[in-house]
Amino acid sequence: MKVGNTHYRSIWHNDTTFQVSIIDQRWLPHVLEVVELSTTEDFATAIREMWVRGAPLIGATASWGIATAMQTDSSDATLDATWQALHKTRPTAINLRWALDRMRDHLLPLPVAERAAAAIALAVFIADEDVEINRQIGLHGLELIRAAAARKGKRGPVNILTHCNAGWLATVDWGTATSPIYHAADAGIDVHVWVDETRPRNQGALTAWELGSHGVPHTYIVDNAGGHLMQHGEVDLVIVGTDRTTRQGDVCNKIGTYLKALSAFDNQVPFYVALPSPTIDWAVSDGVQEIPIEERDGGEVRRQLGRLSSTSTHDADTPMESMAHITITPDTTAVGNPAFDVTPARLVSGLITERGLVNASEAALMAMFPDRQIADSA
Amino acid sequence: MKVGNTHYRSIWHNDTTFQVSIIDQRWLPHVLEVVELSTTEDFATAIREMWVRGAPLIGATASWGIATAMQTDSSDATLDATWQALHKTRPTAINLRWALDRMRDHLLPLPVAERAAAAIALAVFIADEDVEINRQIGLHGLELIRAAAARKGKRGPVNILTHCNAGWLATVDWGTATSPIYHAADAGIDVHVWVDETRPRNQGALTAWELGSHGVPHTYIVDNAGGHLMQHGEVDLVIVGTDRTTRQGDVCNKIGTYLKALSAFDNQVPFYVALPSPTIDWAVSDGVQEIPIEERDGGEVRRQLGRLSSTSTHDADTPMESMAHITITPDTTAVGNPAFDVTPARLVSGLITERGLVNASEAALMAMFPDRQIADSA
Repeated sequence: MKVGNTHYRSIWHNDTTFQVSIIDQRWLPHVLEVVELSTTEDFATAIREMWVRGAPLIGATASWGIATAMQTDSSDATLDATWQALHKTRPTAINLRWALDRMRDHLLPLPVAERAAAAIALAVFIADEDVEINRQIGLHGLELIRAAAARKGKRGPVNILTHCNAGWLATVDWGTATSPIYHAADAGIDVHVWVDETRPRNQGALTAWELGSHGVPHTYIVDNAGGHLMQHGEVDLVIVGTDRTTRQGDVCNKIGTYLKALSAFDNQVPFYVALPSPTIDWAVSDGVQEIPIEERDGGEVRRQLGRLSSTSTHDADTPMESMAHITITPDTTAVGNPAFDVTPARLVSGLITERGLVNASEAALMAMFPDRQIADSA
Repeated sequence: MKVGNTHYRSIWHNDTTFQVSIIDQRWLPHVLEVVELSTTEDFATAIREMWVRGAPLIGATASWGIATAMQTDSSDATLDATWQALHKTRPTAINLRWALDRMRDHLLPLPVAERAAAAIALAVFIADEDVEINRQIGLHGLELIRAAAARKGKRGPVNILTHCNAGWLATVDWGTATSPIYHAADAGIDVHVWVDETRPRNQGALTAWELGSHGVPHTYIVDNAGGHLMQHGEVDLVIVGTDRTTRQGDVCNKIGTYLKALSAFDNQVPFYVALPSPTIDWAVSDGVQEIPIEERDGGEVRRQLGRLSSTSTHDADTPMESMAHITITPDTTAVGNPAFDVTPARLVSGLITERGLVNASEAALMAMFPDRQIADSA
């Protein structure tokens, strides 16, 4: 999406040199820092140190990591070593593994001489495929926003609440939950977004940066505020992303999503979840009972990263100098940090997929994805 | 309550010199900084700059401010000037006004020569009265925890979730929501507290400091986490405080309380509210419709105060040096900051008052406080 007048993706390449560039997201929303990735160690560092984050973007970065390595040495040994080096950066990231396997499975049967070009082609395809899926999600979600705008008439903008960053920074472009919003804004619909901060990692600041950079009106709020806003008619629609959706339509997403779904339900606010259909896990039915929730390091809660307020300007070449960690808890206090929660399907108004809107139920999902659930459970 | 082996109140005086001391809460949970208040300007600064916070503590501080001023000059002019100087520090704080009026109305009819002693006596009484009310709340709430412990048997501690700081730091001692917890811990009941961070001002860090200082096991969590914990049986009881309760039992409390009440209701977790009965507002019935919610400065959301992590030690004499503000939002992003929300009575299991437990309903409240509602509406 746009940053000022320039269209960005979260990862891109030079069409001639195939040099890959990313945004080092560690400095957002404060500094837009573009970094070129050249060596396998560059790619590994970018994934491991979370210069890039979000499942689709991690997958795209990994596939470009293999493609880049293939340009200097297309041997089986290098292919394997690159797979290993990138996989160990975040071994539990399913999309990372999926992208690496897809590259290796495609390249390994090919003659060594053909691998360099084939790797580039597949890396380009993986990125473009992600963009297209999210564009389709946006077109389907746009109709929801258009309908909300029609219901609302002249009574102000369509107010959409979102949680976490299911935005273009987490994908290659468009984002998932944000794609309908960008499509609506680009179509001239009057929208305003309530951006949940999303403690502990404050991904809401990324969403706010995205929306501001693209020119979409928005307001940043703490995670505690959404229920109050819904009670007072200030939210017309909730759209969030998801890491994993079960066959019965339970939605696993960033911690706190469940609380917003409860308040949306209590106030008759439609609650939609945007997702690429590959994130449907057909092997899981009851999300609350069956999905193990990752407990992350307590340091994410104890400490906060931000721009030192005493430093009024920053030097884009050395963003570290203006950033600082502060500690907000007593040193002796124990900290809990569950990273995700599960929103039961009964609280979900509908799912926005690349094939269209679908009810959060097993029957509806099976009807829309008869091919997928058979293939995935095979 | 205790800090290590020493019993503290949040405000106290020397029995001989009547010198008043407080804890400068701006540096908590990082530094325990005790400050002596001597001049009216000292008291005004402490209230205005939030060295002290919480309605009961603000009231107690204001009454000591007048009592201290009366020691050097008991004239009508000084009484009035002190009232004015203290009132303007936080003009919308109802408890501040109430304490100042109570002191003035008591002192003004007295001969000037008697005012110094009478002022001390009333300031002592106001503080002790607050302690006694909260002690009674604790004794009634203790029975809830004792019953939960009996139901749970040997299956681990009674897990209590609380939001914000309704602790002894916000009152003179015991706190409201924390009083049942301190009573249970002191009675040897196995309790563990989930402490909500309570963005934007992170009062959970104060609650964590209190509990840790008194030796109560607890875990600090972001506001997003409570729903997930309730879904998984990790919360046995919720106890929160309140700023204002309506005659039908709606509860106005720190922003985010409503979301916890919704998830408690959805998971059959008892949700209790601890309150001194003077905070019942008999003139208001429907809290969601009738209570105006304060929109506070967005800077509270944009910036976070904490201990600079790069500074590994602090000097208790100069806490400023180890504290820093960081900015977490983009500069161009709008920020919303509603300070409170209203939890409808239908989500409240019961109210813990100094007279005992009572259902959150008009009939039950009128039955327990027949005197009060008539007096207050007169």
